[in-house]
Amino acid sequence: MTADLAWFDQRASKLRACVDAALTTYATFASGCPAHLAEAIRYSLLAPGKRLRPMLVLLGAEACGGTFEAALPAACAVEMVHAYSLIHDDLPAMDDDDLRRGLPTCHKQFGEATAILAGDALLALAFEVLAKGVRPAETAAACCAALAEAAGACQLVGGQADDLVAGRDGGGLDLLESIHRRKTGAMLLVSLRLGAMTAAADAARTVALERYGHALGLAFQITDDLLDVRGNASEVGKRLGKDQRQGKLTFPGLLGVDESVRRAAALVEEARDALKPLGAQAASLAALARYVLQRNR
Amino acid sequence: MTADLAWFDQRASKLRACVDAALTTYATFASGCPAHLAEAIRYSLLAPGKRLRPMLVLLGAEACGGTFEAALPAACAVEMVHAYSLIHDDLPAMDDDDLRRGLPTCHKQFGEATAILAGDALLALAFEVLAKGVRPAETAAACCAALAEAAGACQLVGGQADDLVAGRDGGGLDLLESIHRRKTGAMLLVSLRLGAMTAAADAARTVALERYGHALGLAFQITDDLLDVRGNASEVGKRLGKDQRQGKLTFPGLLGVDESVRRAAALVEEARDALKPLGAQAASLAALARYVLQRNR
Repeated sequence: MTADLAWFDQRASKLRACVDAALTTYATFASGCPAHLAEAIRYSLLAPGKRLRPMLVLLGAEACGGTFEAALPAACAVEMVHAYSLIHDDLPAMDDDDLRRGLPTCHKQFGEATAILAGDALLALAFEVLAKGVRPAETAAACCAALAEAAGACQLVGGQADDLVAGRDGGGLDLLESIHRRKTGAMLLVSLRLGAMTAAADAARTVALERYGHALGLAFQITDDLLDVRGNASEVGKRLGKDQRQGKLTFPGLLGVDESVRRAAALVEEARDALKPLGAQAASLAALARYVLQRNR
Repeated sequence: MTADLAWFDQRASKLRACVDAALTTYATFASGCPAHLAEAIRYSLLAPGKRLRPMLVLLGAEACGGTFEAALPAACAVEMVHAYSLIHDDLPAMDDDDLRRGLPTCHKQFGEATAILAGDALLALAFEVLAKGVRPAETAAACCAALAEAAGACQLVGGQADDLVAGRDGGGLDLLESIHRRKTGAMLLVSLRLGAMTAAADAARTVALERYGHALGLAFQITDDLLDVRGNASEVGKRLGKDQRQGKLTFPGLLGVDESVRRAAALVEEARDALKPLGAQAASLAALARYVLQRNR
């Protein structure tokens, strides 16, 4: 590990702990609800994870001169949307997965009905946290609008819908990139945008973060596909080799492993380059991009 | 039909047409998403319905001196949440229903995966519409917070979770009323609250609407249970007699039909009584309460 990465790794652990503490507090919001449901919500939301999206919110805010304190509700909201989408994507009628983040998937642990409801509850909770926690109210409303769009039919949900049929219907690089722009890219991008919003960032800084987010999102997805081919299941925490077995459209499948690795590296440099206008405040985001390239889970 | 009800029936038709036109416009928001998903969203959102919740938003606003125009985005948002909850409640893992609003349920028509995703998309869309459509931004943020709470783990989702196990686990009137406060009552109540918010209502008016909403919500649920026992399936638009077959906790099951009818009537009078401080502006809400008592679907 290079010094750059070791430094970021330490910083990321601290940010993760800060996000996990806040998520734990928010999860007790649900304590007045039926016990089985509350348990499923906690189980999925607090399962060990990279917390990449909340980190993008916090570091996006930092890169624009904002504070972690102001950005934390938005950081938790994007993780709630992420946790909800994993629960629903794992369902038998969807990707039918039984392992997630190194644990049995929510429906394996709590049953299908409770898993569907836990996902629904987490999606609603994300908006409750944003609407109540972000200040001033203008920013809260703008954050709700941006997150709803990113989580909606044309982005996150639409990407999952496309992903369910892709491969079966053929399709090439354009379709694959479009799926991932929706399915992964939109949530990474909105994480950076929410960070910028809570920092009251100007248009130039926001555009720089968006350029970074576009490149990072695609790099992230390519490394995700590569992990499915080359990763270690116990490190990655989910079943591997599944894309190939299901004949899914993937970057290594379309471009080969070597070209996928090369492309991910180029995108990470593109992402780092986009941060230049933000100066030293964006140092952590720059390190994070390299971290995405070298991740093993 | 009494003159009072005939007058309300005409008014309700006009309001329904106004809501349906707005919902149709919003449904085209989803036109950039995968075609199959967009079709499922339109199918479920625009299926013929009573539009009770949007009507409560509009008439709640009217009762507080607000305009329909300002309240319409909130009216559409509550119907989106309602449509999403019906789609998910009907899923095989949940209530396993095949008929809804007189049509095949969403998963029967489009498959389970698409139904789950269409529900998810509608929940997100509700917040998008609220956050973008309600003005000023302070009101939009407050509306998002209120709707998220009502749709969340302690209310709508929690009520459905309780409902799935109720009956199987026994339980009496207290449990039944608690389920319905969550499952039906919370969304009826928040509809009135959103109406009041968009009209910038003072505390006294808001409290009057809330008293009305509490009584109306319970009356609505009792008549719903009665329809399951006594209704005509083609009018009601869903399978009947199912509660009893599944051994579900219901008001007629616990109190008998006659006492349920009596109690619903008393609650409707209580609801109408709560409106007195609002004067003539609340005439439509008063008529709506009687309409709920006499509904056949």
